[in-house]
Amino acid sequence: MQKTFSAQDIQNFEQRYHATFINSLTGFKSVALIGTANEEGHTNLAIFNSIFHLGANPPMFGFVVRPHSVERHTLDNILRTGSFTVNHVQEPFYQQAHQTSARYPAHQSEFDATGLTPLYREGCAAPFVQESNIQIAAEYVRKIDVEENGTLIIIARIAAVYLPEDCIANDGYIDVEQAGSITCVGLDSYHRTTRIGRLPYAKP
Amino acid sequence: MQKTFSAQDIQNFEQRYHATFINSLTGFKSVALIGTANEEGHTNLAIFNSIFHLGANPPMFGFVVRPHSVERHTLDNILRTGSFTVNHVQEPFYQQAHQTSARYPAHQSEFDATGLTPLYREGCAAPFVQESNIQIAAEYVRKIDVEENGTLIIIARIAAVYLPEDCIANDGYIDVEQAGSITCVGLDSYHRTTRIGRLPYAKP
Repeated sequence: MQKTFSAQDIQNFEQRYHATFINSLTGFKSVALIGTANEEGHTNLAIFNSIFHLGANPPMFGFVVRPHSVERHTLDNILRTGSFTVNHVQEPFYQQAHQTSARYPAHQSEFDATGLTPLYREGCAAPFVQESNIQIAAEYVRKIDVEENGTLIIIARIAAVYLPEDCIANDGYIDVEQAGSITCVGLDSYHRTTRIGRLPYAKP
Repeated sequence: MQKTFSAQDIQNFEQRYHATFINSLTGFKSVALIGTANEEGHTNLAIFNSIFHLGANPPMFGFVVRPHSVERHTLDNILRTGSFTVNHVQEPFYQQAHQTSARYPAHQSEFDATGLTPLYREGCAAPFVQESNIQIAAEYVRKIDVEENGTLIIIARIAAVYLPEDCIANDGYIDVEQAGSITCVGLDSYHRTTRIGRLPYAKP
């Protein structure tokens, strides 16, 4: 049975119900851990499900930050150092990844709190997540203020990529499913995937 | 075996390989059909995999448009009329959905070309996709120029939602998997999902 919700119906939802409803409405999302460090090397790790492809040339992506949420340490570190890592979430550590969304005190690293392992690589001050199969080093480009709701869209550039060689197809396609990456809906629902098919370039 | 790709390595990729690689690197994405009409009621339908949640209050989302691509008819119609629809893609019509990415001549509607069915509802000039289980009426808010690569980020507001009543959980979570929605990677890889779990709100 199909149900209709007007803008007014949605507005009248209880606050938490409202957030959960709208958050799941846009469907499946990427889910990744963003690793950062401040100037003293103190690390931070936070789960993000808003990372989106922005363009291949130059290689860029964007993501959404709520500056007054738990994500603010990540944002502060990115703005100060210009550098961060993006690490795909896989099933063996998805519960630890989710746990990084807890409001830990500023002095406590989510790496310590969740047992995930920081991995350092030359040329990147921010830590990678060793458990992750697909790791990206990224450089901050700029931020866009979304005054309608106080969020920021962060634009970043891909600086380096680390992934299993056998998950790259002959045409450059990265088989993230084979690498074990998962997807999510809303703020708390995690899903594994099964490929239906890859389709050829569409022509009229 | 893990492989490293520097920014220079990626820059040196052949153009098509490069686009495919970067496009799949950000992982799983939502996949939806955007329906529009121009002032004369001529319809357009295009597949988008860049729709991202931007905030619940007001209920907003964003998506990326390449103004010089096949997506330009969609963009023109949105800018002229301010109104469009977002329709989740499900497995029974994913090949037709993919086919909307072909460069049809301006006078030919992708509804006619692919056999998908336009559905009109009061209060929205743009057509929905009748085959889709989750349909959203949306209003254009504004566009953001991404001068780094010539793309646009379109910001929009949710005006109404139509979905199966039995896929809404008690807490407002929309079970898009139960509704049959699928996810995609890159420009051509489609995947169904299996829930691993929903996790409770994380506390330290």
